[in-house]
Amino acid sequence: MAIFDTPEIVASLRAVRQQWRESQKRALEPGGREFPSREALNHIVENLKGALFPLRLGPPDLYPEGEDFYVGTTLETALHGLLDQVRLELKYVARQQTGQDADVEAQALQVTRALATELPRIRTLLDSDVLAAYQGDPAARSVDEVLLCYPGVLAIIHHRLAHKLYLLGLPLLARIIAELSHSQTGIDIHPGAHIGPGFFIDHGTGVVIGETAVIGQRVRLYQAVTLGAKRFSADSDGTLHKGLARHPIVEDDVVIYAGATVLGRITIGKGATIGGNVWLTHSVAPGSHITQALHQHDGRHDTHAEPVAA
Amino acid sequence: MAIFDTPEIVASLRAVRQQWRESQKRALEPGGREFPSREALNHIVENLKGALFPLRLGPPDLYPEGEDFYVGTTLETALHGLLDQVRLELKYVARQQTGQDADVEAQALQVTRALATELPRIRTLLDSDVLAAYQGDPAARSVDEVLLCYPGVLAIIHHRLAHKLYLLGLPLLARIIAELSHSQTGIDIHPGAHIGPGFFIDHGTGVVIGETAVIGQRVRLYQAVTLGAKRFSADSDGTLHKGLARHPIVEDDVVIYAGATVLGRITIGKGATIGGNVWLTHSVAPGSHITQALHQHDGRHDTHAEPVAA
Amino acid sequence: MAIFDTPEIVASLRAVRQQWRESQKRALEPGGREFPSREALNHIVENLKGALFPLRLGPPDLYPEGEDFYVGTTLETALHGLLDQVRLELKYVARQQTGQDADVEAQALQVTRALATELPRIRTLLDSDVLAAYQGDPAARSVDEVLLCYPGVLAIIHHRLAHKLYLLGLPLLARIIAELSHSQTGIDIHPGAHIGPGFFIDHGTGVVIGETAVIGQRVRLYQAVTLGAKRFSADSDGTLHKGLARHPIVEDDVVIYAGATVLGRITIGKGATIGGNVWLTHSVAPGSHITQALHQHDGRHDTHAEPVAA
Amino acid sequence: MAIFDTPEIVASLRAVRQQWRESQKRALEPGGREFPSREALNHIVENLKGALFPLRLGPPDLYPEGEDFYVGTTLETALHGLLDQVRLELKYVARQQTGQDADVEAQALQVTRALATELPRIRTLLDSDVLAAYQGDPAARSVDEVLLCYPGVLAIIHHRLAHKLYLLGLPLLARIIAELSHSQTGIDIHPGAHIGPGFFIDHGTGVVIGETAVIGQRVRLYQAVTLGAKRFSADSDGTLHKGLARHPIVEDDVVIYAGATVLGRITIGKGATIGGNVWLTHSVAPGSHITQALHQHDGRHDTHAEPVAA
Amino acid sequence: MAIFDTPEIVASLRAVRQQWRESQKRALEPGGREFPSREALNHIVENLKGALFPLRLGPPDLYPEGEDFYVGTTLETALHGLLDQVRLELKYVARQQTGQDADVEAQALQVTRALATELPRIRTLLDSDVLAAYQGDPAARSVDEVLLCYPGVLAIIHHRLAHKLYLLGLPLLARIIAELSHSQTGIDIHPGAHIGPGFFIDHGTGVVIGETAVIGQRVRLYQAVTLGAKRFSADSDGTLHKGLARHPIVEDDVVIYAGATVLGRITIGKGATIGGNVWLTHSVAPGSHITQALHQHDGRHDTHAEPVAA
Amino acid sequence: MAIFDTPEIVASLRAVRQQWRESQKRALEPGGREFPSREALNHIVENLKGALFPLRLGPPDLYPEGEDFYVGTTLETALHGLLDQVRLELKYVARQQTGQDADVEAQALQVTRALATELPRIRTLLDSDVLAAYQGDPAARSVDEVLLCYPGVLAIIHHRLAHKLYLLGLPLLARIIAELSHSQTGIDIHPGAHIGPGFFIDHGTGVVIGETAVIGQRVRLYQAVTLGAKRFSADSDGTLHKGLARHPIVEDDVVIYAGATVLGRITIGKGATIGGNVWLTHSVAPGSHITQALHQHDGRHDTHAEPVAA
Repeated sequence: MAIFDTPEIVASLRAVRQQWRESQKRALEPGGREFPSREALNHIVENLKGALFPLRLGPPDLYPEGEDFYVGTTLETALHGLLDQVRLELKYVARQQTGQDADVEAQALQVTRALATELPRIRTLLDSDVLAAYQGDPAARSVDEVLLCYPGVLAIIHHRLAHKLYLLGLPLLARIIAELSHSQTGIDIHPGAHIGPGFFIDHGTGVVIGETAVIGQRVRLYQAVTLGAKRFSADSDGTLHKGLARHPIVEDDVVIYAGATVLGRITIGKGATIGGNVWLTHSVAPGSHITQALHQHDGRHDTHAEPVAA
Repeated sequence: MAIFDTPEIVASLRAVRQQWRESQKRALEPGGREFPSREALNHIVENLKGALFPLRLGPPDLYPEGEDFYVGTTLETALHGLLDQVRLELKYVARQQTGQDADVEAQALQVTRALATELPRIRTLLDSDVLAAYQGDPAARSVDEVLLCYPGVLAIIHHRLAHKLYLLGLPLLARIIAELSHSQTGIDIHPGAHIGPGFFIDHGTGVVIGETAVIGQRVRLYQAVTLGAKRFSADSDGTLHKGLARHPIVEDDVVIYAGATVLGRITIGKGATIGGNVWLTHSVAPGSHITQALHQHDGRHDTHAEPVAA
Repeated sequence: MAIFDTPEIVASLRAVRQQWRESQKRALEPGGREFPSREALNHIVENLKGALFPLRLGPPDLYPEGEDFYVGTTLETALHGLLDQVRLELKYVARQQTGQDADVEAQALQVTRALATELPRIRTLLDSDVLAAYQGDPAARSVDEVLLCYPGVLAIIHHRLAHKLYLLGLPLLARIIAELSHSQTGIDIHPGAHIGPGFFIDHGTGVVIGETAVIGQRVRLYQAVTLGAKRFSADSDGTLHKGLARHPIVEDDVVIYAGATVLGRITIGKGATIGGNVWLTHSVAPGSHITQALHQHDGRHDTHAEPVAA
Repeated sequence: MAIFDTPEIVASLRAVRQQWRESQKRALEPGGREFPSREALNHIVENLKGALFPLRLGPPDLYPEGEDFYVGTTLETALHGLLDQVRLELKYVARQQTGQDADVEAQALQVTRALATELPRIRTLLDSDVLAAYQGDPAARSVDEVLLCYPGVLAIIHHRLAHKLYLLGLPLLARIIAELSHSQTGIDIHPGAHIGPGFFIDHGTGVVIGETAVIGQRVRLYQAVTLGAKRFSADSDGTLHKGLARHPIVEDDVVIYAGATVLGRITIGKGATIGGNVWLTHSVAPGSHITQALHQHDGRHDTHAEPVAA
Repeated sequence: MAIFDTPEIVASLRAVRQQWRESQKRALEPGGREFPSREALNHIVENLKGALFPLRLGPPDLYPEGEDFYVGTTLETALHGLLDQVRLELKYVARQQTGQDADVEAQALQVTRALATELPRIRTLLDSDVLAAYQGDPAARSVDEVLLCYPGVLAIIHHRLAHKLYLLGLPLLARIIAELSHSQTGIDIHPGAHIGPGFFIDHGTGVVIGETAVIGQRVRLYQAVTLGAKRFSADSDGTLHKGLARHPIVEDDVVIYAGATVLGRITIGKGATIGGNVWLTHSVAPGSHITQALHQHDGRHDTHAEPVAA
Repeated sequence: MAIFDTPEIVASLRAVRQQWRESQKRALEPGGREFPSREALNHIVENLKGALFPLRLGPPDLYPEGEDFYVGTTLETALHGLLDQVRLELKYVARQQTGQDADVEAQALQVTRALATELPRIRTLLDSDVLAAYQGDPAARSVDEVLLCYPGVLAIIHHRLAHKLYLLGLPLLARIIAELSHSQTGIDIHPGAHIGPGFFIDHGTGVVIGETAVIGQRVRLYQAVTLGAKRFSADSDGTLHKGLARHPIVEDDVVIYAGATVLGRITIGKGATIGGNVWLTHSVAPGSHITQALHQHDGRHDTHAEPVAA
């Protein structure tokens, strides 16, 4: 006798899948799993990181004289791989919208090329981020350490690649790349967020940055900071409005300390400092120092709580 | 001369282990490492996920006409693997309790079969969770994206499997499966928590849900929400009471925004909304909107802080 | 025609790298990527964990009679691998400081041997941590479960190894080992932190412990606790002062509940309890119970918020 | 200074490739390496072997009740993989012949399906071969041993698959499959050879069977037997004639001992025995016993050398 | 529509398997594939080779001071793995003979221990073989080169392990180990062959040594030598007699050159030399030099053909 | 009780190793296993093959526009890897000869560079071999098929690399590379053999070519051909003379059919044909056709045996 009644379970699972597909009005796609792959994108991003920082994020046995060869061959691999994934997203979207296959070849090629030519600019931005991390953390000993060890730097590398793909109309690939970094760092940056140069997140676990956030130059965040939406707008029938600007604008040189929550389309003025755990739902003038007021049961007031950093 | 004095260190480590075993009154188990394996369970859960969502979480080269074959063979592998792990936990428990080996074969088989026959019901629950995620996030573009990208969905898949094992008397396997998802998502759901259909956690990092929490249908949580215990009961001698209901009851259609802390065996009534960062230790009536009162140093009161979502 | 204009992008990336190197006044290092490797350190730490807890964290097919052989061969592999990484850090530092290669052989050997002879003591400390976790969590069923499942235990294993390397003058290796655990657990302990025996972090996601923190015996933390700096001292020209004691001293038997923020070189006295979400910037007497005062919009005061644990 | 002058060598290698392509009048194929892959075919053949003998050549953790699921999912994988390789060969041939791409989809599908439906018949043939090996070797203890250990059985499994592909017009795939077995067994059977049921090669190293050989039922060969061509026909201008029947016909129940060389389109009659090291270039009547005549320096004639088998 | 009619092929394959099982009167074994595994044995043999020659065939990062630790842990792994395979063979044999499961535990343990205690003696024998290879080949530069490069040495390592298992009543494991070497070297030594110390095979491809061959000390063979059976004895009904001594006895210090065929239970006397390609079916006195008599079409006799070695 | 008495066996094995080292007068090398690695060389050769034939033997996802990048980065990896192995051989030789370490850096670099600059010439030679195979086998359909499928082509690729290393004074690396191909193809070419362009071996299993063989242009061999030594010269005390020219000279355009044995420093004149199984120990004039004279027991003479090819 069989140990498990597998045929019976297989049949039940088939029935449940069938039910779901009917409820979702989905036909089975005859061509197999036509969907971008997390594993493939992980591989692509690792290669792009190697091409961007060959002697730091490339293979350990790379020598300076081999840099360009390595960059070239790694780029080739990464870009052809990305082209495949771009095709998958474009086809998927077409199928969702029109119910049939579409010829996406030209668009896929154009979009992948656009990402490719953007890479040098992305590297320049990332150089500014690495410097910001180095200068912003008293414990940092070298830019190399920052590039190799800091989760905040990993998060911004993924974000700058994901953001470009988002702008190029590939929100799904962008999202997967963002989640690859989220699961490693605990930092959740929506690929739609616009982030200026010299950006640094210290510690990072629990940071959430929303889709329409706009962040200026040289901004610094600590762990568990939220740049969120105050509420979702919805129609009278409850349908959520999408795409509205609903997250904060953070101007240049702002510092936001750990645990602060900043909500809604407000503006944190240039050079302002937001203290740890502050809850903020209105705009703040340039240069302000916002801290939390707290009562504690021993009666002492600690009205002007200090920023929190570790 | 040897570079390291390895024999000396080996001897010291042996002495320390010996000390520990004596302090713990543990005999060396002659049969080797008789303990469930995290790696093995990871493999099993990956297979179960493939069997539950073959065309989405199965292998990239799966074609619709091969679905049932794939589901069948993957189930077989997963269930035999699980049976091994179930045996290990049951034997381990028996050894801990009685100091000797036990025949756990019949029980192991029964329990594994019980998990197996539950799978279709679990898939149905997960379908409701996927839909909830899709409907609850304005940024979600398709149910496929939700299934593949959202850490909250990963967490609930693991939880529904772990919870069933927990109910079947396998708390250790359940715990390992929960931790596999915790380390990837930053979401820490105790396998004992009872969670109704249509559950969704957005962003997720830092969420903690305790062992005796009870969550109704269509509940939505954001990052860093805690459903915790207020305090542990203990005997006069300090021994903790175990198993008492000590975590919140969250009724249907409740939304709890980021950073809220809900403590103790209180009830959040149907349809209530708990604002971001709220600290809550008493029950709340159905339909309530709870927000945080804050003082800020610029003197403005922001009495009715808004929910926080990103 | 080529699909991508790879040569053009390679040239642009080269130009950008060149720019960076000039701005950083860095010569290309002729010897290749002379920098410690995260992958190598991961492998080394896994081997050290196996050598410390052979029957629990070693290979699944290990038998008690083979323990010493396994410990010896694994140590040999780990220590020679570590010696390589130590060399890389020492050489890197020398190059940064003097611009040229240095002979670090003797120092590398001495330092690696120092770590090696420390291992038995580290194991003893970790035994106390495992016991603390077992005794501190009502859900824990056995010390084995604690060792295998608890992220807080993983974090302290990494920390005790990293801290020793930090004391031996290898901050970079220490940092990488700390980040390996940070990315898995969401617990961010700076390798400089001094932590006494019997330490336990429950749940853990979001915990941050700063470089100069000093933690006594039998301390227990919950998720999202910060032991941070109040502010950074800086010269009049803005240069940050490094190495100053700027994080809290936490005395024996303190418990700090979830989300509490403790800032600056303050002292939490022996046996004190810090409630959930408390914001603390001044010292606290031994035995105190600090909780958060909160106003809520329904007017009810919950003056003495309870600790939060799940 | 660079250690190797790689750019110079790269340039020289490019020049040499260019020269070769010009001498061969080959344009660079823009689409990349469009050629069947040895690794891919190896994987496909391993899967087909698993589908043919699931409990013997399938995965070690297969249970009888899972046989059909395993066979189904493995077949799906193998056949889709084979379809890819079939496409590559058909396209390659079209490019070679016409210089341009061709639509081979329908043909590729038809051919792959034809192989698929042939599999049960191939299994039946292989069963007869396994039995022949078991009955023909006094050392064989079971049919399972024969299937798992005997290189001659491995060779005939590969051959029966390769021969079918050869008949279906895929000589390149067939050849690669044959070479996969050749390199493991030292047995070189051209995929064109026609071989009846109940075929067995013992020891095998050095056996060569030519393209137009025809072998009846229940034939047995030993190591280093050649069934070869006597000479190649060529035109007056030296061009080799291809495809002519130029290898032996071996009728039913023939045994050919080690090292025998049988050349040309001759016929070995039913039931004949060819002795070890015999050199044979003329036909042999049914039932004959052919042995080698030898002179040895001690003057003794050993006119009727015995068959050689080990 | 499905691309392949997989269900139909699966059904046909099931029917064919059913037919085979019926024809073989085999019941399906409920317990899965209970048969020794080639992959597992490969792993075990690699470990045993490492334990026998740690600094040559062990891992590249092994240091002399770690030798014993490595040998111990590798032996433990190898022996427990071997114990599993021994169990599988003993159970398989019992099932074949009695149709039911047997308790083979004690026997398996005893047999595996017997192999274990034999290892030092095997190492001593292998040392003599390595020396023989070094002394017998003018091209050999060191014993290390011989150990690492010579296929004949690989073959004798496998043989000495396989032969011991054969003597211990495990012909199946022995056979698999022999075939692992056969497929790499083209040298086919039956595990039953008894071979004295100081044995060396040069080049090796095509060598076949039969089950009952007896080979003395310091014997040297070249490629394509056969030590085979003249004929099989059979009953009047054609059943082959098994186990009879049917292969040559080769006394001490014999050299047999390439391609020689030596058949039947004959004796090659001490110190004899058998020339290349010689065909020999009668015994040869000690000290003889046997060469081949050949006629060639140019009329010249080359009566005393010389030995062949490369 | 322990299952195996591992400590006892470890001690015995140590004693046996000790004995061997004493008998060999070898000190333990303190620096670990300082010996070239077969695995490393395999990796290096695979990379060199990719650099030589990028679109055929390189990765499947290589595109023509990426050829030079791939060649450059692969060469860099291969040459640095080779430099390591060259160092190991040179150091090993120095230790063997002088008993102490030597500085081999300059020599290692020079030798590796010499191999590097030779690569384009090697590719040109290999192109001639590929063409020869294509033209010499009536079954070959394209040069691509020949390059990918023919064991004889694999053997000559390895040989041309190994031969260059041999000439550069690295006989050990050369030997290992030759054996890598020997074990895959059954073709055993000593790296010392000098082989002209346009060389082709068909089928190949069992071919042996000796160290001092000299082979002209456009030579073709079939399986089991030996180009060997007639006898070894030895001093009166039995010490073998090394390095003497002792293998055949095969002039241009010679064809040698399967199984032929050619022995000693004889010359096969330009354009000669040597028939299958011929035994040849004297020189042969240009243009000769040598075939085997055979008596067969049926009394028919087959005086002029034909060439054998399959």
